[in-house]
Amino acid sequence: MTREVVLAARPQGAPQESDFAFRRVVERDPGAGEVLVRNVFVSVDPYMRSRMSGIRTYVGPYEVGDPIDGGAVGRVVVSNDAGFAEGDWVLSGLGWREGGIAEAKHLRKLDPALAPPSTALGVLGMPGLTAWVGLVDIGAVKEGDVLYVSGAAGAVGSTAAQIGKLKGLRVIGSAGSPEKTGWLRSLGIEAFDYRETPAKEALADGIDVYFDNVGGPQLEAALYALRPFGRVVACGAISRYNDERPEPGPRNLGLIVTKRLRVQGFIVVDHGDRYPAFIAEVGPWVRDGKIAYRETIVDGLEQLPSAFAGLFRGDNVGKMLVRVGSD
Amino acid sequence: MTREVVLAARPQGAPQESDFAFRRVVERDPGAGEVLVRNVFVSVDPYMRSRMSGIRTYVGPYEVGDPIDGGAVGRVVVSNDAGFAEGDWVLSGLGWREGGIAEAKHLRKLDPALAPPSTALGVLGMPGLTAWVGLVDIGAVKEGDVLYVSGAAGAVGSTAAQIGKLKGLRVIGSAGSPEKTGWLRSLGIEAFDYRETPAKEALADGIDVYFDNVGGPQLEAALYALRPFGRVVACGAISRYNDERPEPGPRNLGLIVTKRLRVQGFIVVDHGDRYPAFIAEVGPWVRDGKIAYRETIVDGLEQLPSAFAGLFRGDNVGKMLVRVGSD
Repeated sequence: MTREVVLAARPQGAPQESDFAFRRVVERDPGAGEVLVRNVFVSVDPYMRSRMSGIRTYVGPYEVGDPIDGGAVGRVVVSNDAGFAEGDWVLSGLGWREGGIAEAKHLRKLDPALAPPSTALGVLGMPGLTAWVGLVDIGAVKEGDVLYVSGAAGAVGSTAAQIGKLKGLRVIGSAGSPEKTGWLRSLGIEAFDYRETPAKEALADGIDVYFDNVGGPQLEAALYALRPFGRVVACGAISRYNDERPEPGPRNLGLIVTKRLRVQGFIVVDHGDRYPAFIAEVGPWVRDGKIAYRETIVDGLEQLPSAFAGLFRGDNVGKMLVRVGSD
Repeated sequence: MTREVVLAARPQGAPQESDFAFRRVVERDPGAGEVLVRNVFVSVDPYMRSRMSGIRTYVGPYEVGDPIDGGAVGRVVVSNDAGFAEGDWVLSGLGWREGGIAEAKHLRKLDPALAPPSTALGVLGMPGLTAWVGLVDIGAVKEGDVLYVSGAAGAVGSTAAQIGKLKGLRVIGSAGSPEKTGWLRSLGIEAFDYRETPAKEALADGIDVYFDNVGGPQLEAALYALRPFGRVVACGAISRYNDERPEPGPRNLGLIVTKRLRVQGFIVVDHGDRYPAFIAEVGPWVRDGKIAYRETIVDGLEQLPSAFAGLFRGDNVGKMLVRVGSD
């Protein structure tokens, strides 16, 4: 018997714990080419909110009664595939559950000597790839650029800000608490607390690239601050995922024309082919301690709904994970 | 003595005739390398509105008391340059005046056998280049795409729509009168009157590229209609140039992320190097009658202010010109 979390109701506005339910399932034995995995770390991600709304975007929606699929890191219990052995660390899509059966081809084996396995869900996983693709392929950053990152203490934002520094950019980041801005400053990022300082003021010197992790009002300030031929890397909109009726957009979109700006949305799943290049550049930086990362680890499968809700309250610093089993 | 139009006051909202004044100036004789030109056609363009507001964008603002520089087509009266002879048709930047002196290097000689000289201000001039660069370089259109053009009866819009057709696209265009939509239909464009039909309805089948000539509310409809990886060619915002306090932007900018859209602004003056390629492709289409164009020609220098104001009321079909002298 393993426990899993299912969607009990589509969230209205901010997700509530009552939108989820727990279920016990009896696992069958793994078949040929299948692997039984015991989850250790489970990922909670902002993009899951859209799937809960029943909106078909780049991945299908979660249906009510469905388990919440998503990234998870765990260990092999039984392997019917030659590529995996008992005890191996693996990345899977098994999501919000204690474990389960996966096809071997859907697992990636992790090397715990390179970096702690949990990083496969963070700085060396989807959030890290998002940061790198956003800067390199979408933002086309170049040495000397001034980069502004909103949500800069988050998993994607903090990686983007540090990659920016390592690539010779001047980096300004915003976050929502003195603790977060303090951490960012310790990394060499010019950080400001958007609850205290208007972004328009903090960006008064001008910027070349805006890495937008939050959506909403900061885009207006960034459009004012962007220099001619500036780029907006439209990565996410965590401030808006819970909106039943989104706020109107900025009044200054006309600046896109007069400043010849490029605003480009992207989703990391389209850029999986960039994973090797990402690991080749960012892997050594993480191994050598040149990129810091933080994880907010909440203990216990039963905490998954509240950890997820906490994402939208800014409870996390860095990557938010839930530990559902021992190492 | 030649007459010219000067900015008398910065327009507040829609331009008024009282924002302009007429002045008589005594021309000096042209010096070495200079040419005296008598204007025949003078261009009135939406971008001039921004310059009148004193905003420094991609060209400097007009100052109060300044003549209104801009595109003009005329004939050489006296030439002190070996490249030009009396009677030659030339394109100049002499703007809203009966004529004046220009350096030869700032003139382009026109071949009246290829196309009527007034087209150098329209379909084969800046508006035509804008349409072509917008589709080819910014919109990256490809055969089979569905293209939506707002302001489709205007100088830029009608050229963009027809180039789209010639390149094998399905083209939908909007305009603001039955006369304009009728003309567009006669060109094979699927036209709708945005005053009668909501854009969201007209675009319900989906689009790949939105060529935005108007700004404002139609962007929201286009964002809903755009397919994944769609592009917005942000060309102009005539609906907003007169706004003292612009309206808020669309509520659905989050779709830029989920659909991986690219919204890119551009200004034709950055793309002057594309002029030869543009003429090579579009020149023959115009010569052979494959691209239709219309001109709204208003007679008399004294009509320049009201013709300009008329641009923002949609008085023009196609390129708006003022004839300030005989051929």
